[in-house]
Amino acid sequence: MSEKARVLVAGASGFTGALAAQIVWRHPRMELAAVTSRSDAGTRLDRLYPRYRVPLELTELDLDGLDGVDAAIVAYPHGAAAPTVAALRERGIVVADLSADFRLRDRATYERWYGEHGAPDLFGGAVYGLTELYRDELREAKLVAVPGCYPTASVLALAPLAERGLLSDVVIDAKQGVSGAGRGGGDAMHYANMDENAFPYKTEGHRHRPEIEQELAALGGETPVTFVPHLLPLDQGELTSCYAQLSEPISKEEVQALYAERYAGEPFVHAVEHPPGLRDVRDTNECHVYVTVEERGRVLAFSAIDNLWKGASGQAIQCLNLMLGFDETEGLQ
Amino acid sequence: MSEKARVLVAGASGFTGALAAQIVWRHPRMELAAVTSRSDAGTRLDRLYPRYRVPLELTELDLDGLDGVDAAIVAYPHGAAAPTVAALRERGIVVADLSADFRLRDRATYERWYGEHGAPDLFGGAVYGLTELYRDELREAKLVAVPGCYPTASVLALAPLAERGLLSDVVIDAKQGVSGAGRGGGDAMHYANMDENAFPYKTEGHRHRPEIEQELAALGGETPVTFVPHLLPLDQGELTSCYAQLSEPISKEEVQALYAERYAGEPFVHAVEHPPGLRDVRDTNECHVYVTVEERGRVLAFSAIDNLWKGASGQAIQCLNLMLGFDETEGLQ
Amino acid sequence: MSEKARVLVAGASGFTGALAAQIVWRHPRMELAAVTSRSDAGTRLDRLYPRYRVPLELTELDLDGLDGVDAAIVAYPHGAAAPTVAALRERGIVVADLSADFRLRDRATYERWYGEHGAPDLFGGAVYGLTELYRDELREAKLVAVPGCYPTASVLALAPLAERGLLSDVVIDAKQGVSGAGRGGGDAMHYANMDENAFPYKTEGHRHRPEIEQELAALGGETPVTFVPHLLPLDQGELTSCYAQLSEPISKEEVQALYAERYAGEPFVHAVEHPPGLRDVRDTNECHVYVTVEERGRVLAFSAIDNLWKGASGQAIQCLNLMLGFDETEGLQ
Amino acid sequence: MSEKARVLVAGASGFTGALAAQIVWRHPRMELAAVTSRSDAGTRLDRLYPRYRVPLELTELDLDGLDGVDAAIVAYPHGAAAPTVAALRERGIVVADLSADFRLRDRATYERWYGEHGAPDLFGGAVYGLTELYRDELREAKLVAVPGCYPTASVLALAPLAERGLLSDVVIDAKQGVSGAGRGGGDAMHYANMDENAFPYKTEGHRHRPEIEQELAALGGETPVTFVPHLLPLDQGELTSCYAQLSEPISKEEVQALYAERYAGEPFVHAVEHPPGLRDVRDTNECHVYVTVEERGRVLAFSAIDNLWKGASGQAIQCLNLMLGFDETEGLQ
Repeated sequence: MSEKARVLVAGASGFTGALAAQIVWRHPRMELAAVTSRSDAGTRLDRLYPRYRVPLELTELDLDGLDGVDAAIVAYPHGAAAPTVAALRERGIVVADLSADFRLRDRATYERWYGEHGAPDLFGGAVYGLTELYRDELREAKLVAVPGCYPTASVLALAPLAERGLLSDVVIDAKQGVSGAGRGGGDAMHYANMDENAFPYKTEGHRHRPEIEQELAALGGETPVTFVPHLLPLDQGELTSCYAQLSEPISKEEVQALYAERYAGEPFVHAVEHPPGLRDVRDTNECHVYVTVEERGRVLAFSAIDNLWKGASGQAIQCLNLMLGFDETEGLQ
Repeated sequence: MSEKARVLVAGASGFTGALAAQIVWRHPRMELAAVTSRSDAGTRLDRLYPRYRVPLELTELDLDGLDGVDAAIVAYPHGAAAPTVAALRERGIVVADLSADFRLRDRATYERWYGEHGAPDLFGGAVYGLTELYRDELREAKLVAVPGCYPTASVLALAPLAERGLLSDVVIDAKQGVSGAGRGGGDAMHYANMDENAFPYKTEGHRHRPEIEQELAALGGETPVTFVPHLLPLDQGELTSCYAQLSEPISKEEVQALYAERYAGEPFVHAVEHPPGLRDVRDTNECHVYVTVEERGRVLAFSAIDNLWKGASGQAIQCLNLMLGFDETEGLQ
Repeated sequence: MSEKARVLVAGASGFTGALAAQIVWRHPRMELAAVTSRSDAGTRLDRLYPRYRVPLELTELDLDGLDGVDAAIVAYPHGAAAPTVAALRERGIVVADLSADFRLRDRATYERWYGEHGAPDLFGGAVYGLTELYRDELREAKLVAVPGCYPTASVLALAPLAERGLLSDVVIDAKQGVSGAGRGGGDAMHYANMDENAFPYKTEGHRHRPEIEQELAALGGETPVTFVPHLLPLDQGELTSCYAQLSEPISKEEVQALYAERYAGEPFVHAVEHPPGLRDVRDTNECHVYVTVEERGRVLAFSAIDNLWKGASGQAIQCLNLMLGFDETEGLQ
Repeated sequence: MSEKARVLVAGASGFTGALAAQIVWRHPRMELAAVTSRSDAGTRLDRLYPRYRVPLELTELDLDGLDGVDAAIVAYPHGAAAPTVAALRERGIVVADLSADFRLRDRATYERWYGEHGAPDLFGGAVYGLTELYRDELREAKLVAVPGCYPTASVLALAPLAERGLLSDVVIDAKQGVSGAGRGGGDAMHYANMDENAFPYKTEGHRHRPEIEQELAALGGETPVTFVPHLLPLDQGELTSCYAQLSEPISKEEVQALYAERYAGEPFVHAVEHPPGLRDVRDTNECHVYVTVEERGRVLAFSAIDNLWKGASGQAIQCLNLMLGFDETEGLQ
């Protein structure tokens, strides 16, 4: 495709949709066809998000007015996205879905965590949008289920071990900034409640755990995962600390060499030489991974991403770039 | 002792020494005999720490001018405290030492992590200052080794399981505010470096791990511990997330009942019904512990403290209260 | 009054009401009779505000069930407080009103900024609750209009000059933490919007300006005031920077002596020797004032308070202490 | 110049030098010739500042090894820059100096605030680097004195009034994030001191005041300025609130039209329609200015910039772009 692709962002008034709109707006190979929102239709996006500088008015999504739209990024809540995704696909539009609706491949698991599926015919029909694992499939894909920040950071931290079949037990302690809770969030996300605060939540079970287990298993690392998310007093950022038992011992040198080799050619994932910090990846599409072995023999893998970029909107663009035939890094640097 | 005890704070220009001085200053049964500092002698403490409101001038410690001093809190760096502690003990002064110098009971372990000991004759002669575990011993003690924030939060989170001999494998992911790094800390603690940041550190091994293992073993819970500390962008607070495998299965109800019973009579440690947040314990001597069992059967125990209070200075006062015959909670509420 | 006074807090689910409830709860001369809330009735206050540790359930206010209640703190929105205040006064209950409903003494000015008054018979019948200005009146008062944080900090910063009739022109640049916007506040107070942010608001005119002018004039300092509030990325705290032209020149030494003398006997207001910082007064009922003269001859007066304490709930208790015959500082240190 | 300009950054280990190096590194028309530092020579810049991703090693500045260097950005402390600037100019290198050494045009004023000048022959020989005021002069300049964040934000907020000769009295209340204090700063900039804090400083007189007065006078707005800086608990950002008395009255509509017209063609300065917030300009070279008239007739002008970008390094690049014949916005968007 030599001309610019015309890209729609549906649900552009939330944190991830707004950032997706901004990236498309500045993308050398994309044109922002429209930004839609039910709740904020009539408002200009740069009034809601001045720093993103997108001077378009939000409109209601009109499925009958999409002529010339090549691709869509759907940033709807889990459960609400599927029908719109199906409608867009029927019109031949390439779709990157930021919700969880097409990430899981087991129907019963989906229903347990999210309820009835809104487009059952399409269930299972998406490529999982972790480019580092599914690059070839994405080049042919018409629908991508873009993973959220927790699975992205967790799976990238553990993939090299999973691919070797080494994982036997995994604890993931994930820490995320407040933007991960979305634009809603109510009282709990009020500055006066989050300031000087940090806490775990959903400690008895989080719906991203089965997604992480699914992807590790797909790589060859079938293992039970304990996953606990925490909220931190910062805006953007996601840090995962993964504690892994292996089926056979490995030295620090070996495991660091394994990670360095695995991610050597990746444009956005870097095996770094020191424990990663969230400031290092803020406002970027990068993922920094550090792996080591601690005194008791357990393998520790840490990953840091910006939850809005590599954990959502940046990753959607990375996938769309491949699906539209562009270079994977276009518009992301 | 019916009169006020005269208490010296040595090393009062650091974060923990300054807070200890404030608590003593306002304590109904204590009188602040002096505040000492090598680096800041000649400065009034309320110039360094206006919010603590202690209008005394810092002086150099004069070991020959301690007549009438009943007790001392020593807030020196690890390794530097031992000789001063020994000198104070020789003069019959009751001592609460905030450093690590008398916490470990195995000499080789101490030397591996801290180097040569500065008062070998006293090594092993302190009571470990977790009141919830050593209350009876503290009533008779003359020297207490006050644990730091990491062992305090970790051991209190796991003690009920350790006491039952149930622990078989433990991962501790600890998260701490910036004051835990002390008044020094250099570039890394500059606001512009910590703001919007979070990261793990000392990932290959931290000297508080053997201390945690020592105390869990003393309770009956000999187990290897994986311990990784993280720094968070907040001032005061320490949150530990403990992931434990048990030697036999336990239900959520059983383990919550076990914790509720264990801490029922404690004035400062509370088994709470929701995951604890750092704001809940800020500027208090409390420890909130929440325990549950997640979907994969692992026991999760979370604890939240204020690292400067229950993780250092408040705990020192709690110990001294017992050592001096006062009520444990005097001056701490 | 030798027994404890029974004090009701109406509107205890907001930031200022909740803190007022906590101070009463711990007050040696007060007993917390009840905590009421329309929106959160049925919830325990320590579930909404764990750190305040008040284990009472919020109930709906029942005006017919107030036997034995001596005093009430009303923490309702501006405009909504007046009818409840009137009803409480009819029952002989001493009232501290945190709203603006009884602060202004000019009816037209009230109506311009707040609309129709909800209890016109009582309009003008309150003592203005700045203890440092109206201490004698407060000892006899039955209804106190507790000033908010902006007038408190501004008037205390300028009172010594106003009392001498020296003010001829005043600019007040006020900066406040997020808790000043209250528990509501919507999107704008979401952590992800306030983080790393600061901005002025209500730049064309703020309803606290006429209140500040009223109080300065009452002291003898009739002068136009330019007042602009700003929001800062912090929780509690209010800093005012006042830029005053005087009717006759004054030296730095003279003006500092004037302030030192004026506030010498005050338990909570201190003329300090360095520009004040918000950390110095956090979680206290203190006001720190620093005055100086800059190169161009303008007098600068800076004041720092905790907006929830001296700017609202602590000040209400300070007033009630006097109204109930207690020492002014009871329960506030 | 059709090829890339080779640009040296001297003093690249501080906040502004490091950012300047990053902008040059990614600039389409510039090549980063070297990054120098006395204190950190031998360290890679991306080890000190991982997020800037500049993989060059810091070296000591070698004045004899500058063949092929076209331009230099000097980010030295005030007073220390002049001799190096002079040496670079002698070698024909175009220089953007981030220090105050060449900003003032009155020698006595310079000496009062900064002491003896380090290159008196060059004193007065620089163009003042506010592109919006000196665009034509900059196209011919070989040495630019890049203004710091306080004068930049203040002068841009007031320039349209100064140019019309309307200013008669000005108060500037400036608020800045912690990065403005530089990489040093000692105890005061420790996270645990700045967190939840805000305070004025240098209240008796700040050396940026004469610089602001100089530039306003140069525009036709000779007026005394009261200037007070404050520090805020955030990383990057500078907000000025300017309170101006005018020599003749002006309406809100008139003054807003004046600003809109004045800045209509500017690529980086925008007259906005709402009070500006720091988040809106973070990590950009933009300046947002809002002007209005408050109830008492005073003109209020607010400006927001990122102190490291438009207040330092971004502005240096903006100037260099013109000096080197490039488009003013190259590398800054």
